[in-house]
Amino acid sequence: MSNDRIRDFSNGALAKRLGVPRVPVLRRYSPGQPLLPGPAFVAGTGRFAEAVAALIVEEGCTVVEEIGEERVAAVVVDLTDATTLDDLAAARAILQPAVRKLAPSGRVLLLGPDPAEAAGVEAAAVAQALDGLVRTIAKEVRAGATANLLVVAAGAAPAAVDSSVRFLLSARSAYVDGQVMRVGVPVGTPQDPPAMDSPTEKPLAGRIAVVTGAARGIGASIADTLARDGATLVVVDIPAAGENLAKVANRTGGVALQLDITADDAPARLVAFLAERFGRADLVVHNAGITRDKLLANMDAERWDSVLNVNLRAQLRITDALLASDLLGDGARIVSVSSQSGIAGNRGQANYVASKAGIIGMVRALAPVVAEKGVTINAVAPGFIETDMTATMPVATREGGRRINSLRQGGLPVDVAETIGWLGQAASGGVNGQVVRVCGQSMIGA
Amino acid sequence: MSNDRIRDFSNGALAKRLGVPRVPVLRRYSPGQPLLPGPAFVAGTGRFAEAVAALIVEEGCTVVEEIGEERVAAVVVDLTDATTLDDLAAARAILQPAVRKLAPSGRVLLLGPDPAEAAGVEAAAVAQALDGLVRTIAKEVRAGATANLLVVAAGAAPAAVDSSVRFLLSARSAYVDGQVMRVGVPVGTPQDPPAMDSPTEKPLAGRIAVVTGAARGIGASIADTLARDGATLVVVDIPAAGENLAKVANRTGGVALQLDITADDAPARLVAFLAERFGRADLVVHNAGITRDKLLANMDAERWDSVLNVNLRAQLRITDALLASDLLGDGARIVSVSSQSGIAGNRGQANYVASKAGIIGMVRALAPVVAEKGVTINAVAPGFIETDMTATMPVATREGGRRINSLRQGGLPVDVAETIGWLGQAASGGVNGQVVRVCGQSMIGA
Repeated sequence: MSNDRIRDFSNGALAKRLGVPRVPVLRRYSPGQPLLPGPAFVAGTGRFAEAVAALIVEEGCTVVEEIGEERVAAVVVDLTDATTLDDLAAARAILQPAVRKLAPSGRVLLLGPDPAEAAGVEAAAVAQALDGLVRTIAKEVRAGATANLLVVAAGAAPAAVDSSVRFLLSARSAYVDGQVMRVGVPVGTPQDPPAMDSPTEKPLAGRIAVVTGAARGIGASIADTLARDGATLVVVDIPAAGENLAKVANRTGGVALQLDITADDAPARLVAFLAERFGRADLVVHNAGITRDKLLANMDAERWDSVLNVNLRAQLRITDALLASDLLGDGARIVSVSSQSGIAGNRGQANYVASKAGIIGMVRALAPVVAEKGVTINAVAPGFIETDMTATMPVATREGGRRINSLRQGGLPVDVAETIGWLGQAASGGVNGQVVRVCGQSMIGA
Repeated sequence: MSNDRIRDFSNGALAKRLGVPRVPVLRRYSPGQPLLPGPAFVAGTGRFAEAVAALIVEEGCTVVEEIGEERVAAVVVDLTDATTLDDLAAARAILQPAVRKLAPSGRVLLLGPDPAEAAGVEAAAVAQALDGLVRTIAKEVRAGATANLLVVAAGAAPAAVDSSVRFLLSARSAYVDGQVMRVGVPVGTPQDPPAMDSPTEKPLAGRIAVVTGAARGIGASIADTLARDGATLVVVDIPAAGENLAKVANRTGGVALQLDITADDAPARLVAFLAERFGRADLVVHNAGITRDKLLANMDAERWDSVLNVNLRAQLRITDALLASDLLGDGARIVSVSSQSGIAGNRGQANYVASKAGIIGMVRALAPVVAEKGVTINAVAPGFIETDMTATMPVATREGGRRINSLRQGGLPVDVAETIGWLGQAASGGVNGQVVRVCGQSMIGA
């Protein structure tokens, strides 16, 4: 779906008459694009500032150390050494002139310490203050700009944040806004940083990626995006979707596996298929999901069970089987598609919400377990994403969903897919057990 | 401020013409009121169900074990033993008919296990699913009903949840909705459960309570409410508010202390005052706070520093001084007033948000430290509360703030105060390091 279609209503004559503000055009990734379309301002006295400046330069972009008259495409402030209220006041002094000069689709990226690791009460307060601060900046910056915070573990070396900084500065993170993500000491053996925006080298080159529910919608976009980034695809969907699935397999140069993931033998069949064809899996994306909406007061057992079985039980069983096999080696990544509803709840979706919250519980519980194998598991939680489903909503519901976020528009399936691509890299081993919302900083929380 | 005033607009002729739905009247607490205005349905096979049923009966209310034709005032389901998706399906079977029979201002209260303590991945998924489920129920129930989840630590005995169950079932929790709160093993020496709704016995009887910023607004309401519940008040505010402060002291039978909490000697003066007058403090409520709104792009150092100094630095210093003194003994409680903005961020309030997020960091960092003394520290985070400040907002902003929550109205200062009263009880020692939103399940999250 194109940006144009999203803006159909919002920038049309009716919207103008109603005084609806114009929807900013988000910068999105295309191969060969530079990391940033303009200079980056890098500041702060933490241990990451130098490495961040170096990677931006390595990508062929400019770094400035002072704010002048020129607009900047990114503002990166390394506050990982902030421990006092005076340090916090210094951050204000850096950020205040910088956000004034942020270009459209600009990036504010803060790096901060982990409140849970802070030495002392004031330091913990300051670390948590950055959480509120970045969410405020995300609500204030305009024209498609975003603001995010990387909370960095005390033990993480500069290289640990590399893939996350590249993602959050790049156009790939167009719809990731107002988020706080933790980067720890990477699991497994050290990995080279990705060369994300090089036309000759692809960040997922050589990786075998499995995507469930890949025949259409967000799943198909995930397959397309991972293939674009160099992955070899195994696309999975139910037999009834076989025709669409074959199309996705063909256009991504991947292989199709028709499989009802809720079948008793589904985990064994998937494991056998992967073992025979590839001998491994480097990225497993649990994307398949269904909805059967009803208020809880009218929710029968069939609706409940069918949603829980597809969205959660099948994932639990397949993940179990994969971990029991030797398919997931050092550097393998699991990413599960949760939902904003799984965080905030949603009227009429008790079954769907339970399944999507359950995924978050699964991810958090498995993260320390899989880390021992050099594997990570994370969740993405999409907000309002433009799909065939949202296209059929009543216009008021749809416009409401699109507008109650800081970017004033719905996201695209590719925005979810790009986030999965980042988490799926071998170089993203520092990100584990996280739930990353892809929601344009949707207002809807809990 | 009365309920009537809140409903002025919403239930008036203009609102009717606009088709705005009617605002439900929330049941609120008054002394002598029974815990529940009708029967409670108590179900579930966890270790708390029996004790919860017993406390409801002890309060003179009725417990039913089956849903019949009659409406119920509360639905309590003990799911602390839920570990499988089959257990979750059983919860649906219990809840589906029960929520149909919930009376206006009814209470849904789930008790669940802590996902972080779950034995196994499926159990962790199920525990987290309850988080999403209760937030969904809160969004579905109508007519002033609420739904909340107590996450109970594996080691907590039935008595640990007593004060929290009483609060969440009672009218005192009118504006606490869609919240997930953890109850652990109580700190300090075991305490008797409170007799919250007895006309002869008061839950805060004999306790010395300090409230900062008590001259007006939410602070004055906190003082009034704690005094109603039997506490002896020390009300603190700046000298310029001395006249109002004296009125609050007089009507609560407390003592006034004029103090600029940001003054260098303020912590020492407060400690000396308490030591001389009472020799101890049982409940310290950090309520004083100011706003100096500006977009970060225009935020000068003076605005930043003044807000951080009052809202955060003064609290850090006073808490330090109190903990260094011997005023806070076994059973003492600290409650700090944060804000929904401190969780979600807020446009135009970077300084205020940083201070209110900082409070959350402070509370979480101090909780394990103060637990060793038998002390707890928690935060309340008000959403849209009707005060003199909100009364002067433009009507559209005000109506927006009031409506984007599940109870479709703003809260009252007393709703914040009642929550502090619960956290301030000696019997609430199982609740520590928590951030409880008093927001009617405001949509605004992060």
